[in-house]
Amino acid sequence: MQNKFEALIDKHMSSLGASKLSLSSITSEALWQQTGRYSADSELLRLKDRRESGFLLAPTHEEEITALFAALVYSYKQLPLRLYQTGRKYRDEKRPRQGLLRAKEFMMKDLYTFDSSHDDALKTYDQVRHAYKNLFDELKIPYLVADADSGNMGGKLSHEYHFASSKGEDNVWSCESCGYVANEEVVEKKAPGTQTSPTSSLVFTGISKDRETAIEIHIPRPDSMSPGESPSWDKIASYVNLHAVKNAGVDIDTSVEAATLTTLLPKAKSTVSIFDRSLQRADSEAQSAHDLTIIRPGDLCPRCDTGHLSVQKAIEVGHTFHLGTRYSEPLQALVTLPDQKERQVVHMGCHGIGVSRLIGAIASLLADESGLNWPRVVAPFEVVITLHSGISDDVGTQIYDALEGTDRVLDDRPIKDSRLKMVDAQWIGFPIQVVLGVAWKKKGEVEVRCRRLGVKKDVPLDTLHEEVTALLGQL
Amino acid sequence: MQNKFEALIDKHMSSLGASKLSLSSITSEALWQQTGRYSADSELLRLKDRRESGFLLAPTHEEEITALFAALVYSYKQLPLRLYQTGRKYRDEKRPRQGLLRAKEFMMKDLYTFDSSHDDALKTYDQVRHAYKNLFDELKIPYLVADADSGNMGGKLSHEYHFASSKGEDNVWSCESCGYVANEEVVEKKAPGTQTSPTSSLVFTGISKDRETAIEIHIPRPDSMSPGESPSWDKIASYVNLHAVKNAGVDIDTSVEAATLTTLLPKAKSTVSIFDRSLQRADSEAQSAHDLTIIRPGDLCPRCDTGHLSVQKAIEVGHTFHLGTRYSEPLQALVTLPDQKERQVVHMGCHGIGVSRLIGAIASLLADESGLNWPRVVAPFEVVITLHSGISDDVGTQIYDALEGTDRVLDDRPIKDSRLKMVDAQWIGFPIQVVLGVAWKKKGEVEVRCRRLGVKKDVPLDTLHEEVTALLGQL
Repeated sequence: MQNKFEALIDKHMSSLGASKLSLSSITSEALWQQTGRYSADSELLRLKDRRESGFLLAPTHEEEITALFAALVYSYKQLPLRLYQTGRKYRDEKRPRQGLLRAKEFMMKDLYTFDSSHDDALKTYDQVRHAYKNLFDELKIPYLVADADSGNMGGKLSHEYHFASSKGEDNVWSCESCGYVANEEVVEKKAPGTQTSPTSSLVFTGISKDRETAIEIHIPRPDSMSPGESPSWDKIASYVNLHAVKNAGVDIDTSVEAATLTTLLPKAKSTVSIFDRSLQRADSEAQSAHDLTIIRPGDLCPRCDTGHLSVQKAIEVGHTFHLGTRYSEPLQALVTLPDQKERQVVHMGCHGIGVSRLIGAIASLLADESGLNWPRVVAPFEVVITLHSGISDDVGTQIYDALEGTDRVLDDRPIKDSRLKMVDAQWIGFPIQVVLGVAWKKKGEVEVRCRRLGVKKDVPLDTLHEEVTALLGQL
Repeated sequence: MQNKFEALIDKHMSSLGASKLSLSSITSEALWQQTGRYSADSELLRLKDRRESGFLLAPTHEEEITALFAALVYSYKQLPLRLYQTGRKYRDEKRPRQGLLRAKEFMMKDLYTFDSSHDDALKTYDQVRHAYKNLFDELKIPYLVADADSGNMGGKLSHEYHFASSKGEDNVWSCESCGYVANEEVVEKKAPGTQTSPTSSLVFTGISKDRETAIEIHIPRPDSMSPGESPSWDKIASYVNLHAVKNAGVDIDTSVEAATLTTLLPKAKSTVSIFDRSLQRADSEAQSAHDLTIIRPGDLCPRCDTGHLSVQKAIEVGHTFHLGTRYSEPLQALVTLPDQKERQVVHMGCHGIGVSRLIGAIASLLADESGLNWPRVVAPFEVVITLHSGISDDVGTQIYDALEGTDRVLDDRPIKDSRLKMVDAQWIGFPIQVVLGVAWKKKGEVEVRCRRLGVKKDVPLDTLHEEVTALLGQL
């Protein structure tokens, strides 16, 4: 079945003209130090060989592929270049859990794109989004494409692909009326139409990560709060949208505890203030309007005028990132350009699909009390043929032949009790089960079952192929 | 191309009824401690996670698969069971070298077999050997199947699959007239027909690994040696076949240096003697005749009467091992049997193919000064179609269609200089190159090239398919 997932990926990567390769999982410490990611990432699994040389198990391969590119590609004529692999990745998870959803070792497809200009890189980005759309559409499971922050991957243009699921650990916000979808880090809300100046404000004072600057965050005092009330620093996350503070470029350290803060603040050399948009005065020095208050379900959509935001738990199964020159710059991945004397850094993108997580997510989304249930495109087989005892294998072969053109399997294991085969077929989750049982013996008809569509009916042999094909079209 | 190797493997594993799975590369220290392999293996790459739990990067998966079997399989009715995977393996090589031939990280196919009796396990072993024969035959590269010692894998029945190559690091011995092939560890020689008692003997005295027993090894004094000469302990490997000593069950520590030995020997509590067969007297207590002298090219074959042995350097690319109960015993992999009250341990085999090493070995064996050269079955494509400049892509498509049924690719990259395409095709090593160039322009013929068979000829379009198919049949 992993093969089916890989084939699905290969098909859509090939539509992008991407070439498949296979990079080493063990990578050198030195390479990661060049991009500054070695010390920063606490989730790296590190190891030493018998010579005490430092290695790590790669969680992702930007460094490796960019170094390879730098060594082998010289000219813009060799671009665009798109390289991908499907393989194991490693991460020292703080809380490994939920089986395939979050594990130390996981399977991932990672595509890296190289273009000679920013504009070309954006065109590539659009093509990748298009290929991802086609790929996820084939699974026929609803998914969300959320605007996302690229976090420590660098770059700015970024989207995440999610399945809504109560087992998910991400929060995805979306508008009920327009197409706006965004993850927790970048979601915004529209200011209420009839905006009244807030009567008073609430101020949280924190400190910058370098401990040099005191940071005052001004937000409107919630109506529900009594005038004398002043929530402690530790409660800041309940009142202030810390992602928005970070996105505003303020380097506040939210991990500092209130007690420590009391000793740090008097030593700060300067103070910076940041105001919520509702508090901004015309004479304010602050240039841009920040929306610093917490976003709640029901808030207005920032993109359309009428919609309200809602939030759902989701499992992230893919992402697309425009990296820009985040890796090509430090690793000197350069190409000649027709109109320039000096070689120029290339513009990159990286685009992942969590293959093992996708398998786990689909399993949990589509399974019911009878077992697993796979989308047609990734099922081990599309159709399983099960014979009741007393029906000869020749009949099985006849049905197998009648279903020519579908990806089918005949369960001809020498197991006497056919009920066991029925149970296995359900547990494994073949999209369609064709059963030769009572109906066959009585009237020469074949039972066609599809748990996902709630179908269970007897069909004559001459319409079997047509019935099965029609059902498969919906799966 | 890795896909082609995997497909070749999948095909032959499927002929054995083997199911494909995918085990974790990171495995727990505790599991390996249960079989006693954790401390013994100095080539393990070890790592700790953030909780300081001990893990290792699996060099092979006997422990994992046996533990999985023990947890999931209960009855002989579920046997024979054959499970395999193709994936990354890890080894902290003392001397990583020669690219894909010996690296810390490598790709391997490992098949594990489970049977309910010793006899069934031997039948499985034969079937695996048969599948390996079919698989290696498809590559159409001469290979050697050597009798082998299973070393620290346990068990006794074992064969290695080698390509003869000057780059190899193994020595494979074979008889020029019968089918005898054996590796360095198990090769034997026949005693000369006219055996005369040696005039005098040479004795090397070593110490057992537990330092308790002095070990005297008696071999005939070589004719070429002067009577007074007595080679030092350090030279033992030039006179004594240490593999034969080990195979005789003598636990001698050959890594002890002469100086250390002088201080250890006086403290030994007892002495054991082992005699070469030529020195064995009728009244000797030693039961079996050991052949302890060095084997040299030209020595008589132990299996036939007429042949002489020769030795060649070789690259090991596969092995088959009968494991017996080496892993099923400590990990308690048990099944019910129809005639027994208690569940019994299963009998296992493990059978590897070094995929990345196979790729490296084939590359080095078949490459010439013009580039790589792949066997048909594993080449990225069987045929590449290259057009000289000035010939339209439509013609390329026409040729592509004419070669229907072969695995072909049309090089339609927008590169103006067709010589670059020609060079690429050679470097990549497509078995057959179809060129539309001068002959096409002059007389409407197509040039067919096959470097490996030394073919370069112009053929008319209507015999192209036939010509190409005939050549492919030899590759």
